[in-house]
Amino acid sequence: MHDFRLLTPGPTKLPEQSRLALARQVIHHRSEEFRQLLAEVLEGLKYVFQTRNDVLLLASSGTGAMEAAVVNLVPPGRKAIVLESGKFSERWRKIAEAFGIEVVKYEVPWGEPFEPAEVARLVEKHSDAVALYTTLQETSTGVAHDIEGIARAIAGSNTLLVVDGISGVGAVECRTDAWGIDVLVAGAQKGLMGPPGLAFLSVSPRAWRQVESFSRPAFYFDLLAYRRGLAGPDTPFTPATPLVVALCESLRALRSVPMEEHWARCRALGAAARAGLQTVGMKPVARRPADGMTAAYLPAGVDGKAFVARLYSRFGVRVSGVKDSLRARLFGLPILGR
Amino acid sequence: MHDFRLLTPGPTKLPEQSRLALARQVIHHRSEEFRQLLAEVLEGLKYVFQTRNDVLLLASSGTGAMEAAVVNLVPPGRKAIVLESGKFSERWRKIAEAFGIEVVKYEVPWGEPFEPAEVARLVEKHSDAVALYTTLQETSTGVAHDIEGIARAIAGSNTLLVVDGISGVGAVECRTDAWGIDVLVAGAQKGLMGPPGLAFLSVSPRAWRQVESFSRPAFYFDLLAYRRGLAGPDTPFTPATPLVVALCESLRALRSVPMEEHWARCRALGAAARAGLQTVGMKPVARRPADGMTAAYLPAGVDGKAFVARLYSRFGVRVSGVKDSLRARLFGLPILGR
Repeated sequence: MHDFRLLTPGPTKLPEQSRLALARQVIHHRSEEFRQLLAEVLEGLKYVFQTRNDVLLLASSGTGAMEAAVVNLVPPGRKAIVLESGKFSERWRKIAEAFGIEVVKYEVPWGEPFEPAEVARLVEKHSDAVALYTTLQETSTGVAHDIEGIARAIAGSNTLLVVDGISGVGAVECRTDAWGIDVLVAGAQKGLMGPPGLAFLSVSPRAWRQVESFSRPAFYFDLLAYRRGLAGPDTPFTPATPLVVALCESLRALRSVPMEEHWARCRALGAAARAGLQTVGMKPVARRPADGMTAAYLPAGVDGKAFVARLYSRFGVRVSGVKDSLRARLFGLPILGR
Repeated sequence: MHDFRLLTPGPTKLPEQSRLALARQVIHHRSEEFRQLLAEVLEGLKYVFQTRNDVLLLASSGTGAMEAAVVNLVPPGRKAIVLESGKFSERWRKIAEAFGIEVVKYEVPWGEPFEPAEVARLVEKHSDAVALYTTLQETSTGVAHDIEGIARAIAGSNTLLVVDGISGVGAVECRTDAWGIDVLVAGAQKGLMGPPGLAFLSVSPRAWRQVESFSRPAFYFDLLAYRRGLAGPDTPFTPATPLVVALCESLRALRSVPMEEHWARCRALGAAARAGLQTVGMKPVARRPADGMTAAYLPAGVDGKAFVARLYSRFGVRVSGVKDSLRARLFGLPILGR
């Protein structure tokens, strides 16, 4: 008798109007109708990203946009710095290694944030690193990394700043232009309240100059092909049209309040979630906790797998459970309108 | 007052039940509910592909699966044969070149089919070619290539046969196992009557042996990651869940009649479309015409762009118009249930 509540760190529940949009008949992607829709979506993404940089839309999961942010910036054999503190920041390294990039790794224990001063020393030491890859909100631990601080600490360098914002953009403060993020990656199905299957990245002018400077091992993720499409706007390959139509509705909902007000609301919800979990004996994993999602250890003696299963069967609440090295966790992404 | 009729060679209109499925609340992809759904979809795809080989599902457009079929089979510096006769078969070459693969090109004029005997000679001459890339239905010309004949002609060789079936699979006869296709690529939004944003490929045991034999420049399209997921079944990255839910309904509709009966119906519709076009002075482009779609030249003096626009504004019929080197074209994909 309980309503289904999807409280995983993504995908999130879709707003009613986005679901109804999904049910509309498919439109052709080479049509004026779709071009207008895509233009509105790209404009909405720029607003959410707080940027005037180009924003590109890919038909893939967030990982596809992460791959695009690696192969288009760092040629094989060149150097990249990766900040690691969990399963998703590890992914940056794995992608870079798959394409023969030399990786310099700065690792902190899971649950800990990166120290901007340490990052600055690393960038100074490896001044030949083309790009530095980091994470806004580490989904596997619920840590909020200090992207503003990291950006300020490396501002004078030639190293491009690339941020995986997949699990946070839309829900938590992230100012692409004001902070100086060269490439910000996001996915539709988390803070943007859209359906899974779409990913985005913003590209700064100096990042574009790097993209233009070499031939990349890429075709589906060749960002120059996506940039050529921006004039239409159009996409180089068939887009996931129904998902774009639905995302358009989700972005309208997001834009119905000022971004600052929305971030403040998510901050309050995040704080409430952590306080609530602590009163029932659960301990947040992160030392610098994120507001877009929460990860917590269960009390000793509680079986994580059974707990997650019962939360669903008894209360209709779907959370993500045990993963990798952490004992047990609870996730919740507080989002607009519920 | 006219009903909207989407008659492009993809995307096609979605069956009612698939649209309603899209509107359901998003489910979590790491759940038993999704695993059951994915298992049914993969089983349905095997049936449509007429194969017992593994079939993998990607969150991307068809081009993403084409890229996967290139980077996972042919190491950079090694040789591939590409059969070219239009915009989409050209794409095989462009992908291979982007990844530093040596391409041997066999080209026939647009509108012409490949000669199996010529293909056999080419494969014999280039016995060091790892794979041969060809196309079931060339969307830019409406040619049906003789995949059965090509497969028979090169059957004794070590060269893997890879077929882009994106615009035909589901609508026209294509027997993966009986003909001996090592890798068949398809997209959801054409003959399968699903929404755009999903792509698939089947992989034969000898193609898997080639995949396992080298380290590929791939992460999002690394097929070994997708194969590891088959045990769940699961996907290595967040799938486009709503699209999978909708495709499941489309596949149920497709499977409601035997495959042979469905192919026969599409053959009849294709023949009817060509006959109808000829009575109003349009000439099919293809010498060996496909049944899953039709491309035709407009009569002299008719402005292609204006014709396509008027067909939509006056009759609600959406077709694809002029492209690349051909003067003007009409497309129509006859599909189940309309």
